[in-house]
Amino acid sequence: MADELFCKVVSVVIKCRDCEDRRTNVRLTVETRSSTNPVHKKDLIVRLSDDKDPFFLYNLTLGEEDFQSLKNQQGLLVEFSAFPQRFIDLLEQCILEQDKAVPRFLLQLLTSSSVPDSAPANLNIIETNPFKHLTHLSLKLLAGNDSDVKKYLATCIQNLKLENSSLKDKLQQTQEDLSKRLCVTQQ
Amino acid sequence: MADELFCKVVSVVIKCRDCEDRRTNVRLTVETRSSTNPVHKKDLIVRLSDDKDPFFLYNLTLGEEDFQSLKNQQGLLVEFSAFPQRFIDLLEQCILEQDKAVPRFLLQLLTSSSVPDSAPANLNIIETNPFKHLTHLSLKLLAGNDSDVKKYLATCIQNLKLENSSLKDKLQQTQEDLSKRLCVTQQ
Repeated sequence: MADELFCKVVSVVIKCRDCEDRRTNVRLTVETRSSTNPVHKKDLIVRLSDDKDPFFLYNLTLGEEDFQSLKNQQGLLVEFSAFPQRFIDLLEQCILEQDKAVPRFLLQLLTSSSVPDSAPANLNIIETNPFKHLTHLSLKLLAGNDSDVKKYLATCIQNLKLENSSLKDKLQQTQEDLSKRLCVTQQ
Repeated sequence: MADELFCKVVSVVIKCRDCEDRRTNVRLTVETRSSTNPVHKKDLIVRLSDDKDPFFLYNLTLGEEDFQSLKNQQGLLVEFSAFPQRFIDLLEQCILEQDKAVPRFLLQLLTSSSVPDSAPANLNIIETNPFKHLTHLSLKLLAGNDSDVKKYLATCIQNLKLENSSLKDKLQQTQEDLSKRLCVTQQ
């Protein structure tokens, strides 16, 4: 069962080894997924996708054990349960700053390959102060393979079909409702 | 450039080695695709998909050379240019018959594996007369791999988004239009 905590289009600076930095908009989704099989555990999912490019997909699945090593590596001071909200707070700070010429907080996607979507990438949240760049968090995301992209697109289709059918209902209801009112008024 | 010739939900009898025959609805699409690189050629694409199962996908890409061997194997009397329409005529006959208890024409999908979507399959158009079953045509389709399914789903998403946006436009227009007429009538 997935529980969506955050899903917004954010501005990201993409840096790769052999190409120039570019700024682009991607959709960043944060969700928790619970499973009880074999034991009860909760994973944090971070996903980057692009509404305009169905094949752009980066994923991170972070379990409680992975989080402990991330915590040690990056000197984090929060527990796994508090981490998602802290991460989202940082994302919101990046969003607040993203239209500024010199944003204090920014999201950076660092890829090692010149083709951005064929290798793992680091999603960094960076604060820039007059003295230096400070990396608040660095998450390693994996580019989705064909099977991941396939499953992700199937979910998108399901959601689009739901939206579509609710739009059709609303359109029909609006037509009926207003025609009725028109009819009553004309009498 | 693809040119859609036929796209309908049809009833198909699925036969596989280790399971019982079952009748199901699939979407059958026939299109021609032209390419000029390296030489000008036209392929016929036959696709089976399932509106309810995004991962169900069978494809056949039939070029003019493939058609010659199909023609020889199955004793066809038409040329490649006339084949798509003849194929569609047969499909329409199957559709006309599909609600009958004993259809004279039927579509059959013959798979060798018990998991229907993991191996090649034959799409057969079969006429049943009092004397015997006559196979009018047998096309060998390949189950889509992850990459094929991914590309197919991306096209579906594009179409759903277009439909979605036109529904939104229509809803807004209907609301504005009828509100205006209501306003005029009330005056």
